[in-house]
Amino acid sequence: MEPGALPLGPPREERADAARNRAHLIEVARQMVAELGAENVTMDALAERAGLGKGTVFRRFHTRAGIFVALLDEEEKRFQDRVIGGPPPLGPGAPAVDRLVAFGRARLEFLMEHTAIARASLDPGRPVPAKESPSLFHVQMLLNEARPEHAGSGTLALQLVAALEGPVLLYLQNRENAPAPVALMDNLSSSWQVLVERLCG
Amino acid sequence: MEPGALPLGPPREERADAARNRAHLIEVARQMVAELGAENVTMDALAERAGLGKGTVFRRFHTRAGIFVALLDEEEKRFQDRVIGGPPPLGPGAPAVDRLVAFGRARLEFLMEHTAIARASLDPGRPVPAKESPSLFHVQMLLNEARPEHAGSGTLALQLVAALEGPVLLYLQNRENAPAPVALMDNLSSSWQVLVERLCG
Repeated sequence: MEPGALPLGPPREERADAARNRAHLIEVARQMVAELGAENVTMDALAERAGLGKGTVFRRFHTRAGIFVALLDEEEKRFQDRVIGGPPPLGPGAPAVDRLVAFGRARLEFLMEHTAIARASLDPGRPVPAKESPSLFHVQMLLNEARPEHAGSGTLALQLVAALEGPVLLYLQNRENAPAPVALMDNLSSSWQVLVERLCG
Repeated sequence: MEPGALPLGPPREERADAARNRAHLIEVARQMVAELGAENVTMDALAERAGLGKGTVFRRFHTRAGIFVALLDEEEKRFQDRVIGGPPPLGPGAPAVDRLVAFGRARLEFLMEHTAIARASLDPGRPVPAKESPSLFHVQMLLNEARPEHAGSGTLALQLVAALEGPVLLYLQNRENAPAPVALMDNLSSSWQVLVERLCG
């Protein structure tokens, strides 16, 4: 033990173990999604392939959907970095309406690329925590800037996020591992632009 | 057998059995949702309480979510009757924009009333079949009337439906059997109206 370190030996080791287990489970889950498809990744299959107990997997992810929430979270961080610090118009430095339009196109591309994981991360018993949604945070911020008189209650921003994410998450048929049709992406991006420009124009 | 009736005895009886089983299963499922909450209605529990084999329940509904699709479908028919033949502005006879605004409020009320069933009817492995969605049909029709130049590809109508249904289905926390806060309903209805009026105005 280093001089001055608190004598937290066993719990500290447990935390390091937990972090290692988490990284290992996410890596194994990612391999399984690539090889077997998201629909064949279950808590039991993940535990077996990772060589860990079912209890460990359960404590880490709570539900099957939780596995995919963790997988998506890793990708989400990279996406958010582009919004927070990337070049405009997705990143800072462009007018709010242009940023909303760019956000819509980038978000659609993100969801199309990760459709299987994003859908599998939904759990009917546990709504997506809107308050923690980075998409809602950005859309709300940009709407505040473009149209403060409409941004008040927060429900309009939530409806815009739903307009953007709902078609991919809820309604569109998309075979797993099949690339989304380019025309569909273009149509969704164009109508998102119409919606945003009419709302804010 | 009546004179002239086709000799379809056994299959005909099976179909009658199937229809009886379906009505019985839906009635039992409805009771279970009311007594136990949607989260405690499983295929096995439904089969046991209905006094039918698990195979029968499985063939009827295919997945647990299928039980709730069937339950919601019964309510959905009543809702659609109001849109198709009820008094304006929800029913025919009002300008398209007013009908879109009224549709939004009525649909939000419908989803808030049936949140638990509507959420449990979602199956991440099977997207909501948008082509069969009566909401998409109505919104598309009214958008065609109000703004034919934006209605073309169909994606804008789908995004409007997602803006309306997504917050309740995906994002908002709502304790089962708890009434939705009136203020939230009002805010969602108001911002839907802003969205529709700015888009079509």
